[in-house]
Amino acid sequence: MSTGATLQLALDLAGTFVFGLNGALTAMEAENLDIVGVVTLAVITALGGGIIRDVLIGSLPPAAFRDWRYLAVGGGAGVAAFVAHQLWLRVQRSITLFDAAGLALFCVTGTTTAFAAHLGPFQSVILGTITGVGGGTVRDVVIRRVPTVLSSGLYAIPAACGATLTAVALALHFYGDAVAVLAAALCFSIRMIGLRFNLNAPTPRPWPSATRGARPGAATEREEP
Amino acid sequence: MSTGATLQLALDLAGTFVFGLNGALTAMEAENLDIVGVVTLAVITALGGGIIRDVLIGSLPPAAFRDWRYLAVGGGAGVAAFVAHQLWLRVQRSITLFDAAGLALFCVTGTTTAFAAHLGPFQSVILGTITGVGGGTVRDVVIRRVPTVLSSGLYAIPAACGATLTAVALALHFYGDAVAVLAAALCFSIRMIGLRFNLNAPTPRPWPSATRGARPGAATEREEP
Amino acid sequence: MSTGATLQLALDLAGTFVFGLNGALTAMEAENLDIVGVVTLAVITALGGGIIRDVLIGSLPPAAFRDWRYLAVGGGAGVAAFVAHQLWLRVQRSITLFDAAGLALFCVTGTTTAFAAHLGPFQSVILGTITGVGGGTVRDVVIRRVPTVLSSGLYAIPAACGATLTAVALALHFYGDAVAVLAAALCFSIRMIGLRFNLNAPTPRPWPSATRGARPGAATEREEP
Repeated sequence: MSTGATLQLALDLAGTFVFGLNGALTAMEAENLDIVGVVTLAVITALGGGIIRDVLIGSLPPAAFRDWRYLAVGGGAGVAAFVAHQLWLRVQRSITLFDAAGLALFCVTGTTTAFAAHLGPFQSVILGTITGVGGGTVRDVVIRRVPTVLSSGLYAIPAACGATLTAVALALHFYGDAVAVLAAALCFSIRMIGLRFNLNAPTPRPWPSATRGARPGAATEREEP
Repeated sequence: MSTGATLQLALDLAGTFVFGLNGALTAMEAENLDIVGVVTLAVITALGGGIIRDVLIGSLPPAAFRDWRYLAVGGGAGVAAFVAHQLWLRVQRSITLFDAAGLALFCVTGTTTAFAAHLGPFQSVILGTITGVGGGTVRDVVIRRVPTVLSSGLYAIPAACGATLTAVALALHFYGDAVAVLAAALCFSIRMIGLRFNLNAPTPRPWPSATRGARPGAATEREEP
Repeated sequence: MSTGATLQLALDLAGTFVFGLNGALTAMEAENLDIVGVVTLAVITALGGGIIRDVLIGSLPPAAFRDWRYLAVGGGAGVAAFVAHQLWLRVQRSITLFDAAGLALFCVTGTTTAFAAHLGPFQSVILGTITGVGGGTVRDVVIRRVPTVLSSGLYAIPAACGATLTAVALALHFYGDAVAVLAAALCFSIRMIGLRFNLNAPTPRPWPSATRGARPGAATEREEP
């Protein structure tokens, strides 16, 4: 049991580190930031999803603020990315793997956390998915990009699959270490297959341009000419 | 009493559906999103205002996560908009009506919810208004538009009027079904009159361009050349 | 004791007013807003940092919603900026001073609030810094600017220094009025020295452009041509 908790913590901190690294590299690439900005975006990417989940389930202060190691590891990843970003680019392929691993881990732990807070299975799936994709989404909003999760590749869908398997197992009382590993592996596999074959979720059919521009409650002018 | 609660739920879910539809159509128009993005933005638009209110009054998990129907209806609106967006364009005028109806409903229910959580009348008006306009504001930030509510037409003002009438009635102990209907009708009317006659809130006088650019704590470079 | 509490409230409301003024002027400069937008951004800038802190420590409703004076003063600053923005431009140098004073005050009071809610010293420093810089950051995201705190000058660093001194004093049980003044003066001095000599936090070394664009979980296309 103690071994399980230690393993869980180690995996959680590993996920936090890799998400932090990913957030810092993405942020440095997109905008002209100083070290404060890089470390801040590393922390936001690493811990944002879990913080949103904890706020929504009312578990306050969030786990990220109850155990100092999360903030330290997330911030440390930002510093590491800042001082050695050219090194990280060489291991970029590994980062893709680790990022998928972080997504896989967080979607499972996010779901179990929500379920333990007495949310229903359906809501736990949503919150597990938010835990996985939330940090990167907040990062993208801050650096003024349309969040990746909304527009490209399979990112939310693998997380939702892992979260769904976890929630079904919890609701039917057969959740255990084996299911956790299986759910994480499911998320990880779909994510890697999506990347390998460049799969995308369906997009809307082309919008007839003549009818554009008059949605209620919408600004009527377009941003860019 | 039971009839009243059923009516309230029906109106609430109707408001959620129409706000979700509106959010999905606005999002599809503004950015190149896949189905995950469209459904996510439908849910954010439909439920975002109420979630922000519930977080601020400490009623956690938010109502949107306590009753699965809200997430289902909001997401369903996103799917409906995705598969049949050309159909919705034809009924666009109805959507404007429904959007104003959703605004009217949410500003009243948001105010009563905040007041029931022991916030003062003034704060309840703010939270009722946030319930009405919050979801669309988060949607606009995510798709990188200046939130409509900050810059064009009458959108927050009708919601604030409906919320004020509700809060005054609550504070003076004469709130009831008739007042709720009246407050919603007030918000709805101001919104529709504003749209019909293209009314706008006052804007600042022109800014002397020579003095621009040195606000404390502000980036000194301009974004676009 | 009563005098101390009155002084604290007066300083708090003064900080709220100046932050609100600053937020409104920055917002009017950056975007074409109406009075609703200007007042909303004044309130967000003035109260956003404290609201984020209160949500994260679970102190709900936030202080800004428990005492109506905060909302009134923040909104009043927005109205004042709206009607007399040309006047404020003339006292711009004073606004820089007041903004630094607000930052100094909020980083100290934010840290003590978090510590009183039983967060550790390290987390209290983070939350104190968030209290100081959070409002301006949310404002910048809403008006689509990369948050100043991430990219230019010394803004988070002075706040973190003031918060660190406060938290160390709290943890070692020698916190008192003298330490509070000293910590605020430390933040204020570093901020003003940074402005005077145009100091910046370190930025990353130039990014090799050939390797750009393939961060995992990142959109592959660039936004602007």
